[in-house]
Amino acid sequence: MPSTSPAPKTKAVAPAAVPVPDPAAAGDEGMWTFDNLPAQVLKAKYGFTASPKWLELLQKASTRFNDGGSGAFVSKDGLVLTNHHVALGQLQKMSTPEKDYVRDGFFARSSAEEIACPDLEINVLMSYEDVTARVKGAEDPKADDRARNEQRKAEISRITKESTDQTGLRSDVVELYQGGEFWLYRYKKHTDVRLVAAPELQAAFYGGDFDNFTYPRWALDFAFFRVYEDGKPYRAEHHLRWSKDGAAEGELVFVTGHPGHTDRLMTVAQLEDERDAGLPLYLEIARRRRRDYGDYAAQGAEQERRAKDRIFGVENALKAVGGEHEGLLDPALIAAKRKAEDALRAAAATSKDPAARAAEGAWGRIAAAQKKYAARRREISYRRYEPVKLAGLAAAIVRLVAETAKPNDKRWEEYRESNLESLRFRLFSPAPIYPDMEEFMLARSFRESLEILGPNDDYVRRALGGKSPEEAARVLVAGTGLFDPAERKRLVDGGEKAVAASKDALIVWARGLDALYRAQRKWYEDEIESVLLAEGDRIAKARFSVYGKSAYPDATFTLRLSFGRVAGYELGTTRVAPFTTFYGLYDRAFGMGEKRPFDLAARVKDARTKLNLSTKVNFVTTNDIIGGNSGSPVVNAKGEYVGLIFDGNIQSLVGRYAYDETRNRAVAVHSAAIVEALRVIYGAGALADELTA
Amino acid sequence: MPSTSPAPKTKAVAPAAVPVPDPAAAGDEGMWTFDNLPAQVLKAKYGFTASPKWLELLQKASTRFNDGGSGAFVSKDGLVLTNHHVALGQLQKMSTPEKDYVRDGFFARSSAEEIACPDLEINVLMSYEDVTARVKGAEDPKADDRARNEQRKAEISRITKESTDQTGLRSDVVELYQGGEFWLYRYKKHTDVRLVAAPELQAAFYGGDFDNFTYPRWALDFAFFRVYEDGKPYRAEHHLRWSKDGAAEGELVFVTGHPGHTDRLMTVAQLEDERDAGLPLYLEIARRRRRDYGDYAAQGAEQERRAKDRIFGVENALKAVGGEHEGLLDPALIAAKRKAEDALRAAAATSKDPAARAAEGAWGRIAAAQKKYAARRREISYRRYEPVKLAGLAAAIVRLVAETAKPNDKRWEEYRESNLESLRFRLFSPAPIYPDMEEFMLARSFRESLEILGPNDDYVRRALGGKSPEEAARVLVAGTGLFDPAERKRLVDGGEKAVAASKDALIVWARGLDALYRAQRKWYEDEIESVLLAEGDRIAKARFSVYGKSAYPDATFTLRLSFGRVAGYELGTTRVAPFTTFYGLYDRAFGMGEKRPFDLAARVKDARTKLNLSTKVNFVTTNDIIGGNSGSPVVNAKGEYVGLIFDGNIQSLVGRYAYDETRNRAVAVHSAAIVEALRVIYGAGALADELTA
Repeated sequence: MPSTSPAPKTKAVAPAAVPVPDPAAAGDEGMWTFDNLPAQVLKAKYGFTASPKWLELLQKASTRFNDGGSGAFVSKDGLVLTNHHVALGQLQKMSTPEKDYVRDGFFARSSAEEIACPDLEINVLMSYEDVTARVKGAEDPKADDRARNEQRKAEISRITKESTDQTGLRSDVVELYQGGEFWLYRYKKHTDVRLVAAPELQAAFYGGDFDNFTYPRWALDFAFFRVYEDGKPYRAEHHLRWSKDGAAEGELVFVTGHPGHTDRLMTVAQLEDERDAGLPLYLEIARRRRRDYGDYAAQGAEQERRAKDRIFGVENALKAVGGEHEGLLDPALIAAKRKAEDALRAAAATSKDPAARAAEGAWGRIAAAQKKYAARRREISYRRYEPVKLAGLAAAIVRLVAETAKPNDKRWEEYRESNLESLRFRLFSPAPIYPDMEEFMLARSFRESLEILGPNDDYVRRALGGKSPEEAARVLVAGTGLFDPAERKRLVDGGEKAVAASKDALIVWARGLDALYRAQRKWYEDEIESVLLAEGDRIAKARFSVYGKSAYPDATFTLRLSFGRVAGYELGTTRVAPFTTFYGLYDRAFGMGEKRPFDLAARVKDARTKLNLSTKVNFVTTNDIIGGNSGSPVVNAKGEYVGLIFDGNIQSLVGRYAYDETRNRAVAVHSAAIVEALRVIYGAGALADELTA
Repeated sequence: MPSTSPAPKTKAVAPAAVPVPDPAAAGDEGMWTFDNLPAQVLKAKYGFTASPKWLELLQKASTRFNDGGSGAFVSKDGLVLTNHHVALGQLQKMSTPEKDYVRDGFFARSSAEEIACPDLEINVLMSYEDVTARVKGAEDPKADDRARNEQRKAEISRITKESTDQTGLRSDVVELYQGGEFWLYRYKKHTDVRLVAAPELQAAFYGGDFDNFTYPRWALDFAFFRVYEDGKPYRAEHHLRWSKDGAAEGELVFVTGHPGHTDRLMTVAQLEDERDAGLPLYLEIARRRRRDYGDYAAQGAEQERRAKDRIFGVENALKAVGGEHEGLLDPALIAAKRKAEDALRAAAATSKDPAARAAEGAWGRIAAAQKKYAARRREISYRRYEPVKLAGLAAAIVRLVAETAKPNDKRWEEYRESNLESLRFRLFSPAPIYPDMEEFMLARSFRESLEILGPNDDYVRRALGGKSPEEAARVLVAGTGLFDPAERKRLVDGGEKAVAASKDALIVWARGLDALYRAQRKWYEDEIESVLLAEGDRIAKARFSVYGKSAYPDATFTLRLSFGRVAGYELGTTRVAPFTTFYGLYDRAFGMGEKRPFDLAARVKDARTKLNLSTKVNFVTTNDIIGGNSGSPVVNAKGEYVGLIFDGNIQSLVGRYAYDETRNRAVAVHSAAIVEALRVIYGAGALADELTA
């Protein structure tokens, strides 16, 4: 499952989702904020009540991986457990042709052998606070949508800056319920993070793209990092104790983590637009991207190694979004959404509450804004150079120096003071960037834009400067010094003056495109986003008025808790087991004649006579999760670690839009498999001892 | 998969299928008669040419189990290998509350321990001969359809009687291509058959109804019988040698056996009627039957034991026919059938061959006959007492003495001389019949008929004789002596006189219903069957004229050969392995927490540390098979035994109407699993040695 949101969607152009809650949200549905857990459901269905101490443990033991994913502290010495596929980007950055940790895995035999990550930032949510009144209080009620949007943004800048100044913590204001609420989240930030252990990709991602989003599955999709502070292992006061037996069938389990993005509150008009235009376009672009990376990788073994995590990412996204699209194509889903929307509209229209009645017309205005955006979607989508790292760095540098020259509350949100430290950490990463891959992908990106948009498109003209796509890419990559983090730092530190004076080919190029992108973003914020937020707020108020705050907000890559139970499911006319075991791993390998991607890593194959084969490997739960939850801990009622979320079954992919308890399943690595694999396959007994201490 | 055709369909009332071949039949499709193998396809696709000797070996090593299934000789000493579920009826009949071979399995340690089967008849096809000219020559071309139907039947009676008299072999005339051809098949008949070995039901039918028609699967669905002649093991000149390694991925393999029934040549109008009315009614009745047997079995452990094979049968049929119905509900299937039908009709209408042009109007007349039948379908279907053994025996005795009093060529086909020996063998079987089960099911059958047809229906009035369903059943079962095979023999030997004089309650009852059934059958033969056959013949002639004899006939429970290769398949977005292994059996069991029906028989569980776990257990091939093929050998190009057909995947159930090489798969027990299980699980090394000698 995806650890990051699909590549071609960026904050600047993704249509913001707008609420229409399903008041029938029942069963184990929901990615709940910690301030609004469904206490009654937990009590009634599972006889469980969360104590403040239990909640604090789960909150503070949970970690966010800022390159997209979740994790948890699992020892007092700062050990963090996440998925191999969340770690994959760092593993790739650490690897060289000589030491390929992706292919071979890595197990530190002592803390001295742990490898520092080039640019991994881990966050821990320390506190959260409702700032809705303050954010909305900054709006002039007589102003238009566009002006109010600016007023909110400015107030949010002030809130985060104040908080950062006061606490030293990373401070974000999170918009929940599509503008219905605003919360200030404060994070402790860790940037000295070191790799402790990771299996071979072949064991972690067993079965490859075929078995991704598939169950039954047998993946050892785990990796360990350790957080350091002042050069010593970080003392993690809040960490999860390892369960002796791990998850059992039927057991109540919780998942904490950072689900990235859901669209459950989209209006029907928005869903239909996604189904008919948005997702098909996304899939079209992703298929091009897969072809491009495939062509690059086909050039040789080293190219294949370099592109490995990118290919994983695009295949993962294709499968995930393909599943989402399948889900939207189900007429029953749209019909259910329409029914819920009609019910809310009817209830709001006849409500005694003026706030509910004020939503009248909001759905229509959202549909109109959506239509306006859809008319430019294709153009905007092909005016990108997404897969290319260097071009993105150049553009970020040009913007950073311009934005930071402004007062904090006038900046784009990603350049506000509270975000700068994390941004610089990423910009100055020493992770390798490969010129040949950059040139190859930039040329492909240019050619694609030229073919789709034509030679007279403003972006195409500026980006190519009269050259052929291949020649333009060659000249840009040959003429840049941005491979060197020191040069990037020099430019940023030198500010607007240094950037304006730079003759670096890519900086010159990014300067030339800046006005175009700024205009495009301004158009989106003024014409689209402001409408979606204002109307979304009206619908949110109607919903709160009609149903109370019984629903959860759409996912926002912030900490959520979901609950559920370990349970198999019906598939066709048979049943899928709640667990897989090591037995099944060998069944799949030998049943497939050990053909790739079903072959076994050598030490995994060798271990078959030594492992306790009935050890549970993967398991499924009814927890409601989505991409971003990768690496989330599965925790039992005692707050113990019983499993590691890494996937959803294929039936869960529709989860971006809806949850179905009969078939949606989260897929986790069983805690027992991790210990058994560490001890028997990887000879990492000390690490196993640290877990089970 | 079903070993017998679904219960509520009998020859008397099932609408005969009528041809519309798919000229695009390609790939590995086809259940071919031995006289018309697709030699060109085999040569072109697989580089294989069948030698006469190879063909004779496959023909004469193949066996038909007359209670519904297939098998093969696998040793020179008359050892026959088939499925456990084909053997299930015999195992049930041999079992008692004290010795339950179904639950516990059975392994003879020497030939002295082999147990004689009460009523198992095995046939081996010795020769076949085209008698189309003779059968059709007996028709008066000026007579109407009805008279010509009778003339054909009479001629067929003469042919089979002559053949039986001359050769002593069981002789059947088989109608192929829905009246396009008639062939005389001569069988060697074996009735001294003894049980050699059978695993526990739990190992043979692992995963129960859930995993039936499902793949991956791990079933040890095998059983061994031995044919005796003159009190000694039969010397099987033609038997299949055991392959050293068994089936390998991609290998060309053949399946010989006796597929029961397909409807691939049905007209579109017939298919739509099946989809909308025929199969839904069948499923409705089967669901009632499952409920009835379930209620009976719920009374106690002994009742559960007694009903076990019946419950297996009805669940199997429900799942199979449910899958067929799913298949018909796919609009793409009907669209493809319509396209093929339109193409044939157009080609026939414009043909220069008068025989092809004569088919004009045949489709419409078939549709009209079909409609006529459909109007009475529900009435006919609920005028039955199908699940009740005793009632069936009584009716058969009443008919037998009446029919055998007529000249051979005037009889119903099942009472012709050539069929009598087999019929008597079944009628006089010493297999136990349980009064409580008979009464229970008879009462349920009566109540069902009363509720559906109402008290004034002719059948209901005669069957109940004014009593309540429960009282009528009680009186009939209490007043019959037909439990005793000797009494059944006495009545049959005494002929019409003895039957007319009998005061046996069930005989009296069956006499009272005989006229009604005879009238119903006559109506069907005169009004429906004669039309379907005559028009079917016209369409068959058109098809031969347009396409040549490049197609295979629908299945008729006669010997067929299919070809294909060992191959996994795509399912959703992943791949299904060609093989399963013993590893997977334990994965499924432990993954399911050993809950029924996924628990393990004790000795199977114990064997997990002794078995070679990577031994292949089940595998899938592209061979085109259907119910009746159960127990068929899978044979490699050298004529060696490599596997044992026992199932189809869920995607293959549509195979009654169409074959799709991408997804339809036959499922077989791997030859290596049989030997490994015999040696390691069952301590039956001598039997394994006999196989691999």
